[in-house]
Amino acid sequence: MFRKIDHVGIAVKNLDEAIKVWEGLGLKVEEIEEVPDQKVRTAIIHIGESRIELLEPTAEDSPIAKFIAKRGEGIHHIALGVTNIEEHLKELKDKGYRLIDEEPRIGAGGAKIAFVHPKSVTGVLLELCERNE
Amino acid sequence: MFRKIDHVGIAVKNLDEAIKVWEGLGLKVEEIEEVPDQKVRTAIIHIGESRIELLEPTAEDSPIAKFIAKRGEGIHHIALGVTNIEEHLKELKDKGYRLIDEEPRIGAGGAKIAFVHPKSVTGVLLELCERNE
Repeated sequence: MFRKIDHVGIAVKNLDEAIKVWEGLGLKVEEIEEVPDQKVRTAIIHIGESRIELLEPTAEDSPIAKFIAKRGEGIHHIALGVTNIEEHLKELKDKGYRLIDEEPRIGAGGAKIAFVHPKSVTGVLLELCERNE
Repeated sequence: MFRKIDHVGIAVKNLDEAIKVWEGLGLKVEEIEEVPDQKVRTAIIHIGESRIELLEPTAEDSPIAKFIAKRGEGIHHIALGVTNIEEHLKELKDKGYRLIDEEPRIGAGGAKIAFVHPKSVTGVLLELCERNE
């Protein structure tokens, strides 16, 4: 079941510059975290029940680096908070959705996450995200 | 002040097809609205305190049609719920942010809305949105 928009991920070239821009808007970065698995450094902004995550690539072969090289900075993905992520993924697979991750893996903050391919979701890179909250 | 992610706007070619895709994921479209000012037909999905808005262009010169022609379907903008939108816009202008709308206009559901240019916001088309709630 879907609970909320967990976060929106934004690909940025330079995290320090991006933090200035987003804090200048009136938001506040509360945490900075490195996620080696996805080769990004991320600045997390809490807003309501959701987050905005600014994602800076830490390697040239990071998916975020490739995204920026192709399309420039901008919104990279949307993550929806779910319950029972394993069951949800199985349902989507049975319905024919193209999954990038058939089994959840562990993302930032220990959440279980899995991506669904944009080809299946009107061009949207969709993350499912289950947190212990 | 920022309150929440109000919505994420997703550009789609065909609203009926997109509704099937998003409802297949397990979400539910609750309203369909035509917004002549922006030349779109929109399907609204409520999720937590936010919404996902699927946006189909209703004319070739719709900003959504241009976006799809250039980049394909996908996430078009993110809208943050604010209080005192007029004051907020004035502050952003004073700080040098490039505003698409210097004064709010009326969007879907009677909300006051204004867009900030992606060049000012790390490639993100940002909408500020004030609703009577």
